[in-house]
Amino acid sequence: MTRFSESLWLVGKDPWPDVEVIDQRKLPFEEATLILRNLEETARAIETMVVRGAPLIGITAAYGLYLALRNAWREDGEVNDVLVEKSVQRLLNTRPTAVNLQHVLKDCGQYVSLFEGEEKVHRALERAHHWRTLDVKSCSTIGDVGLPLIRHIAQHKKGPVNILTHCNAGRLGCIRWGTALSPIYKAHEEGIDLHVWVDETRPRNQGLLTAWELGQEGVPHTVIADNAGGLLMMQGKVDMVIVGADRVARNGDVANKIGTYLKALTAYHHRVPFYVALPHTTFDPDVGRGADIPIEYRDGKEITTLRARCDGHIRPAAVMPEGTPTLNPAFDITPARYVTAYVTDRGLFTPATIHTLQ
Amino acid sequence: MTRFSESLWLVGKDPWPDVEVIDQRKLPFEEATLILRNLEETARAIETMVVRGAPLIGITAAYGLYLALRNAWREDGEVNDVLVEKSVQRLLNTRPTAVNLQHVLKDCGQYVSLFEGEEKVHRALERAHHWRTLDVKSCSTIGDVGLPLIRHIAQHKKGPVNILTHCNAGRLGCIRWGTALSPIYKAHEEGIDLHVWVDETRPRNQGLLTAWELGQEGVPHTVIADNAGGLLMMQGKVDMVIVGADRVARNGDVANKIGTYLKALTAYHHRVPFYVALPHTTFDPDVGRGADIPIEYRDGKEITTLRARCDGHIRPAAVMPEGTPTLNPAFDITPARYVTAYVTDRGLFTPATIHTLQ
Repeated sequence: MTRFSESLWLVGKDPWPDVEVIDQRKLPFEEATLILRNLEETARAIETMVVRGAPLIGITAAYGLYLALRNAWREDGEVNDVLVEKSVQRLLNTRPTAVNLQHVLKDCGQYVSLFEGEEKVHRALERAHHWRTLDVKSCSTIGDVGLPLIRHIAQHKKGPVNILTHCNAGRLGCIRWGTALSPIYKAHEEGIDLHVWVDETRPRNQGLLTAWELGQEGVPHTVIADNAGGLLMMQGKVDMVIVGADRVARNGDVANKIGTYLKALTAYHHRVPFYVALPHTTFDPDVGRGADIPIEYRDGKEITTLRARCDGHIRPAAVMPEGTPTLNPAFDITPARYVTAYVTDRGLFTPATIHTLQ
Repeated sequence: MTRFSESLWLVGKDPWPDVEVIDQRKLPFEEATLILRNLEETARAIETMVVRGAPLIGITAAYGLYLALRNAWREDGEVNDVLVEKSVQRLLNTRPTAVNLQHVLKDCGQYVSLFEGEEKVHRALERAHHWRTLDVKSCSTIGDVGLPLIRHIAQHKKGPVNILTHCNAGRLGCIRWGTALSPIYKAHEEGIDLHVWVDETRPRNQGLLTAWELGQEGVPHTVIADNAGGLLMMQGKVDMVIVGADRVARNGDVANKIGTYLKALTAYHHRVPFYVALPHTTFDPDVGRGADIPIEYRDGKEITTLRARCDGHIRPAAVMPEGTPTLNPAFDITPARYVTAYVTDRGLFTPATIHTLQ
């Protein structure tokens, strides 16, 4: 098993390297990587979920803008703001729900427009680095902010703290640490006895990414069908739920992986604390409420076909017959009132205070 | 596509035929059948879910008792109540949650104990027939009782009535008609415009059985990830939920396929009517409340491995790496207060009246 310390890194000659990422479509069966050399490869990597997770999407896109400018400079000896605008637009069009993408690209676009020529390329790279470094710090802070929530439960119960998480909001969705998993990693490092219920997260099974990265760190965990969380909460086997977010509206409504809402409502009902972990860049004060966040509908093939090991080979496996009619919303909205607290890089917020997050 | 009119039928020479069933493990990819010739084959067919669904499990077990007696008579020219008791016990041990199995076997055991010798075998077969015939009638009545609920919605909205169902409570889980799907079939026959949201129903994907049988009848339907139901209810795209049951306690708590509870709670929250369809044999007055119903935990391999089409062949596909830690509860409990009404072969009941069902 390869030990990846980050989900994205640079390769090739300075000063203008290429970008390498873990190909998350192939995890956990294969630990493959992919080198991104231009705008289109980067945009496709985001669209096809080679990289995924709101923070990582934003950072990858920042590098995509750099690659677009670098290649134009190499080929034509010229870069201008029309190219910047076009590249930003291509990257924005990859995925609609996560706001980090918009946030980071807007920033990078504005920043590089202050410079001309070769300097524009250097600054695009510098700005991508900036966002990447910031993510590592942000996620580490999220861990520090969330850790006492786990510690508190550990001090009041016998046996492991049982934490349920949905999708992958770990280091694979960021650079290091992750968002929802960051407090878990910090608690595990501190020696707190804990166990993670990992929702499989159909249709794309990102729970397996979570299981894979928890496994790398030796964090005890169990994969369950998305259907099982209700019974486990009813049985008192879930002490807290923590998930990431793709976008949080001004009123605190949370867009996150499809299925999050069912768990939030059920956690609320059973008085299980429900935490949403996010860097401040995932907060979108420009959107008033969850109903205004665009929900991405993805190809139904994600429901009907999965990568699997058949007959010793890893290949696409049709788990449903061809032609099965499907609908595949990728995200849902959790109303703010079901959120116990938001665990952010700027501290802990509640539904009453989240609008002040900056 | 083969058109099966029933999920279980008799084959071979009268007066003592064998029993043939659809091998539901292979649906919807392959339309295969399996002949049951003895007790052990029958018990294994129930355990491994060749047949599944509370009503069908009970009926299949009744035939299993007949096969045990028939073979003993053929081989030894002798049958006695020790054999009856042993056979009943073997069949009871196959699956713990559905009560129909206990109900039917208790009845058959008592009935055949009234007779001796060859007559015992005849009566065992007769009693299995009795339960099978009763199921067809019961399920048809459930359809008649549930139909007005759908008709009522159709009269008050434009466009199709959107009905969400979980697992398979159709003809495949019974003999004909089904429980939850019976009102849908009757409404479709009547020409009511409707559309069914079919929960995939991980880990065993029984939603595909539902899609397959709805497809055979030309009922419009869409398969969704189990995670999607919350968003659809929030969007007003679900007019009613109807599910089957494996056991209903005296207080109305419902044991049904894992994931049912999450949908019931969410439906309640969105004021979407939540109906449970059952024959009276699924009601268990001997169990006071849901917490006392035994929940079956099945092999975690059901989560990690699925039948799938890989490279043109249908075979087991590992959708998770070997060694993934899993927990696989097969059922959960829905408290009675989230049930709008029980649609039964004895009429419509509410949580306040269900204890009177006989």
